[in-house]
Parts: sequence; C-alpha cells; structure tokens
Amino acid sequence: MSSANPDVMKGLHLLADLQGCACLPDLLSDAQGLAAQARAAVQVVGLTVVGEAFHRFPDAGVQPGGVTGCLLLAESHVALHTWPEFGVVTLDVYVCNYSADNSARAEYLMAMLVSLFQPRAVERQQFLRCVPT
Amino acid sequence: MSSANPDVMKGLHLLADLQGCACLPDLLSDAQGLAAQARAAVQVVGLTVVGEAFHRFPDAGVQPGGVTGCLLLAESHVALHTWPEFGVVTLDVYVCNYSADNSARAEYLMAMLVSLFQPRAVERQQFLRCVPT
Repeated sequence: MSSANPDVMKGLHLLADLQGCACLPDLLSDAQGLAAQARAAVQVVGLTVVGEAFHRFPDAGVQPGGVTGCLLLAESHVALHTWPEFGVVTLDVYVCNYSADNSARAEYLMAMLVSLFQPRAVERQQFLRCVPT
Repeated sequence: MSSANPDVMKGLHLLADLQGCACLPDLLSDAQGLAAQARAAVQVVGLTVVGEAFHRFPDAGVQPGGVTGCLLLAESHVALHTWPEFGVVTLDVYVCNYSADNSARAEYLMAMLVSLFQPRAVERQQFLRCVPT
C-alpha cells in the first residue's frame, strides 16, 4: 500500500462503558477467563492477537479485585477494565484499517465483548483516528 | 469510596495521533526502547504500571517493522502504535480517577509521550468515560 493513499491511517476506535453487568460475578475478577474469552472473540471476527497482558487487582476484604487487560492485535488493540464492586466494565476496540477495512470486524467484536457482561446499560462512543501520511 | 459517589467512574481518555515524527527513526521500531520510555514516563507522573505487552512487527523488505504496545496501569492503560513507514504514531492514555483525580497526570504523561516522537503535527481528542454506579 502506498503512503500516498489518503485513507491508509483511517482507524476506528470504539468505546463502550457498561453498567449493571448481570453476568456471573466471578467473571469480572477472572483475569485468565476474560483473556480467553477476549482471544476467542478476536478469533471469531478474524482479527489477529500478537500479544497480551492481563492483571487482577487484589481483593479488598470480601470484595474480589477487578481486572485490567489488553490484547495487542495486528490491527491495533482491545482493552478492558472491570470494577466488580460496581458491576462496571469499560471496553476499547481500536482497529487501524491499515491493509483492510476492519470496521465491521471491530463492531462485531465489540458486540461480542459487550454481550459477555450482560449490562443493564451501555454508553457507547466511537471516533475515527485519521492521520494523513 | 462509596458506590454512591457519582464521580467514581469519571475517567479521562486522551488520544493523540502523530504525523511527521522527527525522532530517531529507529525509535519507531524499537519495542524494548519504547516500553522502557513509556514505563519511565509513567513513573515520572506518579502512575503505576501493573503489566505490559509490546510487539514488533516483521520488517517489510528494507522497511523496519512498527511496534504495538500497551502498559497496564493501576489507573487504566497506555497504548501506542507506530508506523515507521509513514512517520506516524497513535497514542492513548486512559485514567479511571477511581481513588484520585488523575487527569493532570494523564495530561502530563501524554505530553511526555508525544515529545518522544517530535511530531510535525498532532491531532488530539479527549473524552470523559462516565459510568454511574
């Protein structure tokens, strides 16, 4: 792809902030489980994981700790953060559309991730990240 | 902190999309170097790294591959993606303001990260991620 292509860096970044998550409560504290679910969703939509990091925060008394995690994609990244004490999750899906238009894959991936958590409400934002080269 | 606090989930997400990066070209392909620089900047501003993943893409002929990376923070995350062939970098700094207002730290961190790359131009976006609990 030539650097003269004006669309080459037109990335799509989706955000979803979830409240009232009605999934099994343990999911919000299960770093390995969340990593596995996210990897599986990425595979289903045809994107490519090239790295990952997940961290579970310590419990606070009887309250299980939350999870923060990121999947590095060949197409950019997925990030998630959970707050079990509030039933809250925030999600990012960013695809760069470098060698293909991955927008539909990103939308589908976000829908799959949101459905994992069964939220009562979702606040969504999205924006283009366009960098002329 | 009580879940009744309406501000508890008022996070700040900063984005900067950089073009014409005039840093040493090797930086854009140096996954270990970028990870070290990002970790150091996080430490300077008083945020906390709890995990990381960085990946260098393969070279394309004589063109060095780019880097995609993420630092997990106790306060949410930093993400970066480089395209050496275009002199382009995209940056994310997301802080959750859970136990303190980290907005000023996030702004300072983003300024430090942007300055690493010496861009000719920067497109910035920012948004609040507010989830009532």
